[in-house]
Amino acid sequence: MKRGAIGVGAAVFALVLLLGFPGVQADELRGTGDLGVIIEREPGSLLIVESTGKTRLMRVEDLGDFSHASVKYSRDARYAFVFGRDGGLSRIDILRGVVEERVMQAGNSVGGAISQDGTLVAVSNYDPGGVHIFRSEDLGLVAKIPAEYGDEGKLSRVVGLVDAPGKRFVFSLFDAGEIWVADFSDDPRSPDILRFRDVGRQPYDALITPDGRYYIAGLFGEDGLVLLDLWDLDAGPKRIMDGYGRGEEPLPVFKMPHLEGWAAANGLLFLPAVGRHELLVVNPDGWREVTRIPLHGQPIFAVARPDGRQIWVNFAFPDNDTIQVVDVATLEVAHELKPGSGVLHMEFTPRGEQAWLSVRDENRVDVYDPHTLERLTSLEATTPSGIFMTWRAHRIGL
Amino acid sequence: MKRGAIGVGAAVFALVLLLGFPGVQADELRGTGDLGVIIEREPGSLLIVESTGKTRLMRVEDLGDFSHASVKYSRDARYAFVFGRDGGLSRIDILRGVVEERVMQAGNSVGGAISQDGTLVAVSNYDPGGVHIFRSEDLGLVAKIPAEYGDEGKLSRVVGLVDAPGKRFVFSLFDAGEIWVADFSDDPRSPDILRFRDVGRQPYDALITPDGRYYIAGLFGEDGLVLLDLWDLDAGPKRIMDGYGRGEEPLPVFKMPHLEGWAAANGLLFLPAVGRHELLVVNPDGWREVTRIPLHGQPIFAVARPDGRQIWVNFAFPDNDTIQVVDVATLEVAHELKPGSGVLHMEFTPRGEQAWLSVRDENRVDVYDPHTLERLTSLEATTPSGIFMTWRAHRIGL
Repeated sequence: MKRGAIGVGAAVFALVLLLGFPGVQADELRGTGDLGVIIEREPGSLLIVESTGKTRLMRVEDLGDFSHASVKYSRDARYAFVFGRDGGLSRIDILRGVVEERVMQAGNSVGGAISQDGTLVAVSNYDPGGVHIFRSEDLGLVAKIPAEYGDEGKLSRVVGLVDAPGKRFVFSLFDAGEIWVADFSDDPRSPDILRFRDVGRQPYDALITPDGRYYIAGLFGEDGLVLLDLWDLDAGPKRIMDGYGRGEEPLPVFKMPHLEGWAAANGLLFLPAVGRHELLVVNPDGWREVTRIPLHGQPIFAVARPDGRQIWVNFAFPDNDTIQVVDVATLEVAHELKPGSGVLHMEFTPRGEQAWLSVRDENRVDVYDPHTLERLTSLEATTPSGIFMTWRAHRIGL
Repeated sequence: MKRGAIGVGAAVFALVLLLGFPGVQADELRGTGDLGVIIEREPGSLLIVESTGKTRLMRVEDLGDFSHASVKYSRDARYAFVFGRDGGLSRIDILRGVVEERVMQAGNSVGGAISQDGTLVAVSNYDPGGVHIFRSEDLGLVAKIPAEYGDEGKLSRVVGLVDAPGKRFVFSLFDAGEIWVADFSDDPRSPDILRFRDVGRQPYDALITPDGRYYIAGLFGEDGLVLLDLWDLDAGPKRIMDGYGRGEEPLPVFKMPHLEGWAAANGLLFLPAVGRHELLVVNPDGWREVTRIPLHGQPIFAVARPDGRQIWVNFAFPDNDTIQVVDVATLEVAHELKPGSGVLHMEFTPRGEQAWLSVRDENRVDVYDPHTLERLTSLEATTPSGIFMTWRAHRIGL
């Protein structure tokens, strides 16, 4: 076999630029398609793992306050952008296990997103209320979007930030009750912003459907959801599923479920009911409630196995030692697992042959075969919470 | 920032094993999430490209007969498995641009698949009729499945091979009119095989829906399709969409469309009509035909933009200089492009900001922005046909 000359010279040059010597010995040439990272909450560190051998590779430490930390990936699946609660934004090379850049971009941050083309990283902030936009290649500041509302120029806390097709970011203003759509396709330094006012009281979280069409925000101050169809912005936001929220003889809510905790499978949506021991099944065609599935406790995340045959659900305290597995064909709970105390997060490998679970209080991440429900292995991790695998780099809204 | 000790020793060890020295200088440490390969048909070579800078990286030559060659990826997105028409199966390291292994596994081969867990590579063959199974790590032979049928032990040509959840492969027997489901989850050397007989005359190609639930085969000898619901194997195969095929005043068929050329978007399926200048729109709920969209010529591939808002369609000779873009919101042709003569294949980046087109007769691959329909760049390629990007590693059936 001959090997062509194209790019080989460039490869050598890039190697020197990237690594220098003698650091190269510590850097393993490998694909990044089977890599992932696990948030270690108490120490504020990031564990880099791979799912082929199901092993730990490296740990990156001293990354700050990792309560509610979340992760997005660069389009080449090499760099993890980690959003800390303390406003810290880190760009981490998961091949080498080093922090390439780190900025304290705000005082109180709740999440981020990466643009469709991978060039922009956005962070939503409580303090100061707004969205900051950075270049993904070096975390250089590109733009600031203050979430001003009302006549006195007050700043609203920003939640539910997601990326959308057409190099857009969509987010909600908790204090203002607004949804903004920011389009960066022209000049990223001055995005075109479309503001929807009076969408409902206190949007507290949001999701975008896997196709990037529907943006749905949960309302903390009212008993329902608000829907924006990005294919028909002229129609504006509309209320759906009144009764989804905390209404109808509300139970004490131990933890508001994340809307990212919704699952889409077999043409249906599966939603953790707020404060209720139920999983709501909704048909997006007309946003009709199909049924409610009784559960073991208050659901937090509902995650679909990639083939859509199962929904895995975890629970709020005091039931957070349990996972229930719903069979999408029968819409009933088919299995129950007791991995241990503090099951905070679940992540499937992209074709569904493995399910990874964070068991915080036992300092363990368990890997299950979701077809046999056999535990394949366990990995040591210090108070693990979020698990994020690199396949997310290739999905809208993730 | 400190870097933990976990796996660093292992990394060094693996580095030596993988590369040896001094070869390392020619190997660029990089993520594999933005890589892809392009089949160069006449020379039988593979062009390795990346979509962040939209450049060519390397070429791997002398790979045999590449008419109808197809590609699958290892789960780490580092290795491309290339299936040549001549029965050649090559395992190519796209980080280094070298052929790791190559076997001539049969005399006449039509396609392959990789198992859900990435450990097995399957190839479907005309001669000898059957399926060969190899270890993905070294292409060592694991099992042979002769496609025997009838009383005299004749061998059928095998088509429509796909992977399915549960470490299964599904394929069709053209001469026998059968569909087989082979389960490798127990002992890969002796899979459990479920045979469905009399499914219809001459299944010539097949697809599996993106969730891995429905296997659909096209019938060359009859005017319709056959559907197998992998969630309900007891129900067995059933006929759907009689009239899809070449019936009702058939036109001359210049090229049978690939069923892999079906697109799923917005809850609907979009099918190239066989021999007709139409795109069929089908609702999988009941497999009802919703409408037919008039087209410029005989469609070959219908490919959905990842957000499902557009379907891009290419055409058979003599109309293969054209792309038509269907707006899924209106179900009408919204745009037409004339990239040049011999547009053979289309591939989107996984979040939909780029569309790559092979323009065979002009030895060019064009990259478009599907939102503005602007041509972003062109890359030289020698008689390019199939374009396969590494995001496919993370999708069922791709």
